[in-house]
Amino acid sequence: MRIILDAMGSDNHPDPEVQAAVEASRLLGDEIILVGQEPLLRSKLDALDTSGASVRIVHAPEVLEMTDKPATAARRKAQNSMAVGMDLLKAGEGDAFVTAGNTGGAMATALFRLGRIRGVKRPALAAPFPTRKGMCVVVDVGANAECRPEFLVQFAVLGSVYAEHLLGVKEPRVGLLSNGEEPGKGNDLVKATYPLLEKSGLNFIGNVEGKELFGGEADVVVTDGFTGNVLLKSSEAVTKLLIDLLREGLLSSPVTKIGALLAKPAFARVKEVLDPSRIGAVPLLGIDGLVLVGHGRSDAATMVSALRAAHEAAEQGLLDKLRSAIEERL
Amino acid sequence: MRIILDAMGSDNHPDPEVQAAVEASRLLGDEIILVGQEPLLRSKLDALDTSGASVRIVHAPEVLEMTDKPATAARRKAQNSMAVGMDLLKAGEGDAFVTAGNTGGAMATALFRLGRIRGVKRPALAAPFPTRKGMCVVVDVGANAECRPEFLVQFAVLGSVYAEHLLGVKEPRVGLLSNGEEPGKGNDLVKATYPLLEKSGLNFIGNVEGKELFGGEADVVVTDGFTGNVLLKSSEAVTKLLIDLLREGLLSSPVTKIGALLAKPAFARVKEVLDPSRIGAVPLLGIDGLVLVGHGRSDAATMVSALRAAHEAAEQGLLDKLRSAIEERL
Repeated sequence: MRIILDAMGSDNHPDPEVQAAVEASRLLGDEIILVGQEPLLRSKLDALDTSGASVRIVHAPEVLEMTDKPATAARRKAQNSMAVGMDLLKAGEGDAFVTAGNTGGAMATALFRLGRIRGVKRPALAAPFPTRKGMCVVVDVGANAECRPEFLVQFAVLGSVYAEHLLGVKEPRVGLLSNGEEPGKGNDLVKATYPLLEKSGLNFIGNVEGKELFGGEADVVVTDGFTGNVLLKSSEAVTKLLIDLLREGLLSSPVTKIGALLAKPAFARVKEVLDPSRIGAVPLLGIDGLVLVGHGRSDAATMVSALRAAHEAAEQGLLDKLRSAIEERL
Repeated sequence: MRIILDAMGSDNHPDPEVQAAVEASRLLGDEIILVGQEPLLRSKLDALDTSGASVRIVHAPEVLEMTDKPATAARRKAQNSMAVGMDLLKAGEGDAFVTAGNTGGAMATALFRLGRIRGVKRPALAAPFPTRKGMCVVVDVGANAECRPEFLVQFAVLGSVYAEHLLGVKEPRVGLLSNGEEPGKGNDLVKATYPLLEKSGLNFIGNVEGKELFGGEADVVVTDGFTGNVLLKSSEAVTKLLIDLLREGLLSSPVTKIGALLAKPAFARVKEVLDPSRIGAVPLLGIDGLVLVGHGRSDAATMVSALRAAHEAAEQGLLDKLRSAIEERL
């Protein structure tokens, strides 16, 4: 299998990418195609032991920065590493493309270079949320601030295929994010979406709130990209606040420091549940190509997980399964 | 001062209410009017030492349950303790009304019995969120699932008056909840609200995300009631998940248990920041009467805080200040 990796995506690029390319190639037996500034990548690669690894470099002179506006940058920097990588994917030079770069930029570039799966109204961003009992995929977390009910039904279809084939959940339970569990609760969008999900043939469990989401009672939760983005960012911010307060408290005296040392396994358990490297990267759902986006803060270990996720997505034939699921419902 | 207290509101009513009435009366020097089933309240009150306290009982035969639908229950149970209490408030028998009952029921009853402040388009629910640097009031967290831009501007006006006079913040910083900080980010509602807030004369700081909210960079954050409700409930659910995971980890071995014991002051600090009893109760913003709603899980100490919040709201002339702020902008 051949996986194309944007070498200029993560906050600390290209070191995590180059290191992960070598490790993942050995681990997965795949060829990894690193896309980015060749001289830089060559020198980084030469400094590593690459025995048993199959890594090659494709040159891309430009880099999309986090501060670049997705739409304009995709035009202005036509030879950026994301664009070049996706062109390789489209040309059949690889089975999947992975980037830890700007998500908005990846979506804009993918729409332009690869287009949508036939029948998909709006591609969406999925995000895995940690829960009491595993993962829950929330779709959309930011691609579409304004949605129509039929978009949300497609998010549910795409999210279910993802949960089934990449998270290994049979008949994923689909929840509709709302401001109350009872049917009839919600804003106009939710109220109009509810009956469509009921007759969708999906395993629809009704409206869900934060309690059900984080309690692990749904595998896929659908919402518009505005609400989903607020949900994602506020959950991250609450988690950060709690962990910061706890850390400050634990460092405040010699006695609490000893307590923290003894209690370390407990903190490790929390960290394990929250660890984003478990998933690595998530596919852009609805794009006509396997494009997976990881977190900007990814280190080499997380990038290896991202490459493994891409390997599995390709091996499972995820793209064909997404295409069929949409096709069936046209 | 006279404060009317719904004695049948909290999950464990009427014990927390009766006990808090006696304590708060002594503490604040106020008369507390307990509204609920008289024989029950009488027997509970007789069992306490009421020296130095001024507490009287007004009979209300019916009780609104958490499972009652707000709109229908308000009609079907016309003599419920919330309705009777608000009628007393309207008749001038008290300076404020406090309940720990169903928030939706309180809003529906208040709209029906007391009405809106002149010029207010939609009353809203406010919720104080703990942040890195104190409290942030989010408006609306559930009263209005669908909003127009001019509603959000009024939420900002009402929330600013509340933050200034009850939280003691001079020129409260107002943020607009969005899916990105930059102006121009947002759904249609946010994009249309932004320019109105810019010229509102309020201390508008622009779009905010979870990071700014929980980082304490705004004193008031406005949003529609659907998004605000999702934000509120998911923040509570994330917090619960983290605390549950940590507790389980800490109880998992003798060593971590000792660690937990030594680290106790650190946990106390987190608990203090998250403690809802610090605020006790929050006024229904835009209702033409001082109605404060506390948490259903309130114990006696939290109910005392709720009565203190009502005392302060009345003492500060909050209702008149809310009326003037709206009047000025008509």
